[in-house]
Amino acid sequence: MDYKFSDRVQNLNPSAIREILKFTADPEVVSLSAGNPAPEAFPIKDITEISARVFAQRPFEALQYGATEGYGKLRRRIAAYMGEKHNLVREFDNVLITSGAQQVVELAAKVLCNPNDVVICEAPSFIGSLNSFRSLGGKLVGVPMQDDGMDLNALELALKSNANTKIIYTIPNFQNPSGITMSFEKRRLLYDLARQYDVVIVEDNPYGDLRYEGEDVKAIKSLDEDGRVVYAGSFSKVLSPGIRVGYAIAHKTLLQKMTVCKQGEDVHTTMWSQILCDEYMGGYDFEAHLDELRDIYRKKAELMLSLIKEHLVPHGITYSPMQGGLFIWCRLPDGVDMPSFCKRAVMDYKVAVVPGNAFLVDENQPCQNFRLNFSTPTDDAMRKGVAKLGELAKEVMK
Amino acid sequence: MDYKFSDRVQNLNPSAIREILKFTADPEVVSLSAGNPAPEAFPIKDITEISARVFAQRPFEALQYGATEGYGKLRRRIAAYMGEKHNLVREFDNVLITSGAQQVVELAAKVLCNPNDVVICEAPSFIGSLNSFRSLGGKLVGVPMQDDGMDLNALELALKSNANTKIIYTIPNFQNPSGITMSFEKRRLLYDLARQYDVVIVEDNPYGDLRYEGEDVKAIKSLDEDGRVVYAGSFSKVLSPGIRVGYAIAHKTLLQKMTVCKQGEDVHTTMWSQILCDEYMGGYDFEAHLDELRDIYRKKAELMLSLIKEHLVPHGITYSPMQGGLFIWCRLPDGVDMPSFCKRAVMDYKVAVVPGNAFLVDENQPCQNFRLNFSTPTDDAMRKGVAKLGELAKEVMK
Repeated sequence: MDYKFSDRVQNLNPSAIREILKFTADPEVVSLSAGNPAPEAFPIKDITEISARVFAQRPFEALQYGATEGYGKLRRRIAAYMGEKHNLVREFDNVLITSGAQQVVELAAKVLCNPNDVVICEAPSFIGSLNSFRSLGGKLVGVPMQDDGMDLNALELALKSNANTKIIYTIPNFQNPSGITMSFEKRRLLYDLARQYDVVIVEDNPYGDLRYEGEDVKAIKSLDEDGRVVYAGSFSKVLSPGIRVGYAIAHKTLLQKMTVCKQGEDVHTTMWSQILCDEYMGGYDFEAHLDELRDIYRKKAELMLSLIKEHLVPHGITYSPMQGGLFIWCRLPDGVDMPSFCKRAVMDYKVAVVPGNAFLVDENQPCQNFRLNFSTPTDDAMRKGVAKLGELAKEVMK
Repeated sequence: MDYKFSDRVQNLNPSAIREILKFTADPEVVSLSAGNPAPEAFPIKDITEISARVFAQRPFEALQYGATEGYGKLRRRIAAYMGEKHNLVREFDNVLITSGAQQVVELAAKVLCNPNDVVICEAPSFIGSLNSFRSLGGKLVGVPMQDDGMDLNALELALKSNANTKIIYTIPNFQNPSGITMSFEKRRLLYDLARQYDVVIVEDNPYGDLRYEGEDVKAIKSLDEDGRVVYAGSFSKVLSPGIRVGYAIAHKTLLQKMTVCKQGEDVHTTMWSQILCDEYMGGYDFEAHLDELRDIYRKKAELMLSLIKEHLVPHGITYSPMQGGLFIWCRLPDGVDMPSFCKRAVMDYKVAVVPGNAFLVDENQPCQNFRLNFSTPTDDAMRKGVAKLGELAKEVMK
């Protein structure tokens, strides 16, 4: 039959990243394009132990239907932990367990946005979330990034000229793809603007625990006085992404609607995964594990930066400094055609990077950036890959 | 803040079942209102064994990100199994693994329905799916059920008078809540009607393997010549619901859009759960397990039916005969107020059943039915619960 797709998905296509990932199936291709945790970051022994214990002691809890809101013990543990450690939980807030943080973003848009309502996002921003908003008919308006976060003048202009704005979406820490962290000053001003224009903030924080240097910056949610911040947390980068566990901390009233929508999507999040998170946080040294992760990624980030300085900077490629996360945002000199650079990298030099325009609201806008990941490749792969990129840069720039 | 919810969720509220389930937290209440598999239906030994093996042999596969389409081995296994056993897979079809069959229903609606587009469903039908359509702005039109499935005259009238119908949603086997199975004749006619009016059929089949007597009826998907049937399968009733694994078998073009939308919802389904399903289907005797399940539920169904005949029928309560599934659909005599009967059952007699109007498109329509479940309660609980209902019936009907 000749399918008539809904307006919201008419122009929704597999992301450019996915297209590039297809090339990475070729074992000869060095992939610097992923965003996966490093294999050595998984606490496999502990997870194996917990899983065996769950099946020995309470298999029914892991296999039977659970509540849509999530596993009670995990919800309470997250509320206590995030409340004490980060001051994220208000009296009016509650915790909803989701199937990854992506679901928080999607549910927030589902309960707040009518078709063509505006979602203001950072430009560039995470493709998964952009597609999530698109798949619900949201109209995206991008606000350019500066070294300390969104350009707030541009944000205010966007709010002023789009009266039907419902959500400001931000990844305040080590943003994907730019690596940028929003300053506390800007977080406060952003919250004030959201209040003034009466919109909800979705604060997506998958990378917050992965700071390699500098001081933590308080979450926007910690400033929330009137329940307009939906905080999205995730176990993907700190425990395992394959288990698909994230959570929302938000006002009860918002969460109640999001919960009904979640029920209509997947009924509840995998019970085994939820129990795993709860037992790991409760029975093992979570803080020590986070320290270990930071050590692993700090080393990988330092290696990547030194390789960039050695192979790319001499050919005019610059990069945005970052203090954490999984990505480095590189920039080709003006005049170099970025899409064809990325294409030649994977076709001729067997190195996959993500072209920066993939992260824009309009992929056809001009863009000189590409994204490098340092968490997934081995050290050797990074050395080989960046050296190859250097060869290409040398060829292109001469 | 004063939330302005999207139009689609304005009137979306927690389902009546959930409200009733709250009473069942009281240990004195006998619950005949759930739809959970029986604890003895889980192959715990085998699952424990598989899980331990996965962590011993290939933990990274279980913990790392996976493809949105699903675990390749499981997709191929389902395609082969459902193709050979049920002739469900056409050349143009593909398999998408989802986080429970609920997600198939939601994704189909997301890619096909604009706000106020019509979804035709059986009346009564499964609340989770009704809410799923509502949460995407779909307008529900209910078609009354007869003993052999939808009233096809009413269906044709609904199609004629709603030119913007995009989906016909059906649970053809042992429908929830009515227990009704659609005849093959009606399946063929329904497919022809869908073709004539150019709409997609979503065939939801969570209970198909749980037939206790009679002959299997071929799936509507087996008649699909032009890719208009989306088949939703599930491991919830045949392995475990807590692992959240379902799947769609549908035309590649449809699945491609559904896959992009799934990426925006939960990126992919829990890897551990998917590997579990694959290993169980591949390494254990799945057919023998299904036979065992049928034995367990056949016995429970027979007990429930004998209790209904003993305690309820004498007071004028009738029931719809069923040949499989988890539910029995009972009917109070005209003149008896059903909602107050159900309320008194749980408040005064400590037995929870689900009032039938919860399954209607418009909960305010008159309804004399209530739903009984026999898979979750123990035999003793069933005996006690139905006897109590009998006492209430006696009191009300005298």
